[in-house]
Amino acid sequence: MLKLGVLASDRGSNLEAIIQNIESGRLSAEIRVVISDHPDAQALERARQYGIEAIYLPPGSHKTNLDPKAEEGYVTCLQEHQVELVILAGFMRILMNHFLISFQGRIMNIHPALLPSFSGLEAQKQALKYGAKYTGCTVHFVTDEIDGGPIITQAVVPVLPGDTVESLSERILKEEHRIYAEAIRLYSEGRLKVEGRQVIINDK
Amino acid sequence: MLKLGVLASDRGSNLEAIIQNIESGRLSAEIRVVISDHPDAQALERARQYGIEAIYLPPGSHKTNLDPKAEEGYVTCLQEHQVELVILAGFMRILMNHFLISFQGRIMNIHPALLPSFSGLEAQKQALKYGAKYTGCTVHFVTDEIDGGPIITQAVVPVLPGDTVESLSERILKEEHRIYAEAIRLYSEGRLKVEGRQVIINDK
Repeated sequence: MLKLGVLASDRGSNLEAIIQNIESGRLSAEIRVVISDHPDAQALERARQYGIEAIYLPPGSHKTNLDPKAEEGYVTCLQEHQVELVILAGFMRILMNHFLISFQGRIMNIHPALLPSFSGLEAQKQALKYGAKYTGCTVHFVTDEIDGGPIITQAVVPVLPGDTVESLSERILKEEHRIYAEAIRLYSEGRLKVEGRQVIINDK
Repeated sequence: MLKLGVLASDRGSNLEAIIQNIESGRLSAEIRVVISDHPDAQALERARQYGIEAIYLPPGSHKTNLDPKAEEGYVTCLQEHQVELVILAGFMRILMNHFLISFQGRIMNIHPALLPSFSGLEAQKQALKYGAKYTGCTVHFVTDEIDGGPIITQAVVPVLPGDTVESLSERILKEEHRIYAEAIRLYSEGRLKVEGRQVIINDK
């Protein structure tokens, strides 16, 4: 069974979706630990409700990434829990070299847009402002290029007349829940092969 | 009936699709003139086959846009043909100020990607190289921002395993033919309202 570590800063709705997929048997994996940079992240509480170890690890003084010492603590914690695949589920900090090297090719992130469109923060708001007629979400491997790693899977949603950031985000979130679990499942079955920027999905 | 002027540099497959939509009565419009910057563009021949006036206008010495004198010639030609809406159908030159001002809000372009992803040349190749799982095409109004004007309509196509530039381009082209005619139809029915970057499609 694939051992997962989940990093989350906030609600952890993707965490919840992954747990649901595990509980229902659709995903053969085990969440060994959930770590947050916020002591009161709802994700921690959610994890504990399911009996999953949930830890707050202070991020240090940096705002957009983890302090080197803190990052080392994150890596150590994940390693001590024998984590094989790191899942970023709304983790709002950029991972630096030590982390990326320690889990090279074994970190996934989800972004609420069809990358390379609308990378960075507030992707749904960006899509609305741009006047896009379609947007979506992207699960990708994490590299040192922000929102730029090889794409595992994407899903498309329409932008509808009268959409607000909230209504659009909700529509995208449903697809996020679906494709994140799907991407982890493909990984757990050893079906993902990365060649440069291409992620090839092998048949069962 | 809406009077169209079409600019094309090459095959003019989108021109053909527009003609078919007009001939079949799905689109209430009339192509008054087709202009090309290449004397032997297939688009010119295609137009003549349908009895449409087709003119080669030399672009001048610039490679990426029209010389000022040439651009004036294009504008004059379109105006003399009483063109109300200018359709760029694979026209490989950037339009400059005189043209943009003369037909402000009345120039459409199609781009073979889901903008803002993969703007510029060889959009299909870019999508493949990036490892995108979905791409598509975009009809937009033309402004001074290249591939950046307000979006009228988009269509999505999957990138499939084993896709080449050719196979992907063909899949996108089918959607181009569909949505370009659709965008012109909406315009001809007076149903497009532009507010900043937003193109609102009004009900009939």
